[in-house]
Amino acid sequence: MQTQTINPSATEQMIQMVLNSWTNQNKAVISFFNKYNDDAYLNEVAPGRNRAIYLLGHLTATNDSLLPLLGLGDKLYPELETPFQINADDKKPVKQTVAELKQYWEKVNATLTEGFAKMLSHDWLERHTRVSAEDFALDPSRNKLTVLLGRTSHQSYHLGQLNFLKADLKA
Amino acid sequence: MQTQTINPSATEQMIQMVLNSWTNQNKAVISFFNKYNDDAYLNEVAPGRNRAIYLLGHLTATNDSLLPLLGLGDKLYPELETPFQINADDKKPVKQTVAELKQYWEKVNATLTEGFAKMLSHDWLERHTRVSAEDFALDPSRNKLTVLLGRTSHQSYHLGQLNFLKADLKA
Repeated sequence: MQTQTINPSATEQMIQMVLNSWTNQNKAVISFFNKYNDDAYLNEVAPGRNRAIYLLGHLTATNDSLLPLLGLGDKLYPELETPFQINADDKKPVKQTVAELKQYWEKVNATLTEGFAKMLSHDWLERHTRVSAEDFALDPSRNKLTVLLGRTSHQSYHLGQLNFLKADLKA
Repeated sequence: MQTQTINPSATEQMIQMVLNSWTNQNKAVISFFNKYNDDAYLNEVAPGRNRAIYLLGHLTATNDSLLPLLGLGDKLYPELETPFQINADDKKPVKQTVAELKQYWEKVNATLTEGFAKMLSHDWLERHTRVSAEDFALDPSRNKLTVLLGRTSHQSYHLGQLNFLKADLKA
């Protein structure tokens, strides 16, 4: 890519586009979980695959882990890590209801949005909290922007799967 | 977001992160289609859902349409639009083989990569070719970067679905 002089505001615009992309995926996830009666989400999204409620817990736990990873604070719901990130879907009753997980999802994303608003453009190019200064010097792409782009793709990935759910219990 | 003075190279770094994210998704798609015997991709990814070969055609046609949309040239395979973008999967034999579609996929992405290498950072914040100057003035987020971010999410979305394919015919 060629070098050029560019207005500093271009960097802010670019961050805004990435944040828009993130927010759009967040909205698509919650729209999906507002579409049917809560019971519908207890079903597997396809035969033998994860239940929709598991994927909601998984996505919530994953976004929650962004708070410490981006240096924005502690996890809000650390209890979600074991059942939804470390363990695979065991198909047993989930401790949280769909309604509770939806609340957690909204709370986590609202907290992230607040944190993002306080970040300066160049903060996004700084290392995330799980890479050492030494490793970051070797690979500066291990920054906060890369983390957010990865998590945005992660949401899209599971959203594609969620949309396979066959449900006829309209909310 | 607060304003700050920032090195122009920050914009180039940001673009590079977005392009890395795009490239990672491209690689994940082709890795998936290199995993099994070609015949496996003639199956539906889940009961009653799209066949994997259809999704390969769909992703290829979608990426091909980026060439005109980003002002990088004409589509390479316009014949893919009707069967894989306009029409849903009709479950009839596909005209192209999996091997052919994989070649098209690689050719389209290589051509896009060449085009991206010639773009300056600020080109990404310019309007894409399907939005008018008037509409763009009202909503500057309708730029080329937003298009690429959207298509990256699109790839992740279908990749999540592709990974549901049950196949035991290792390549």
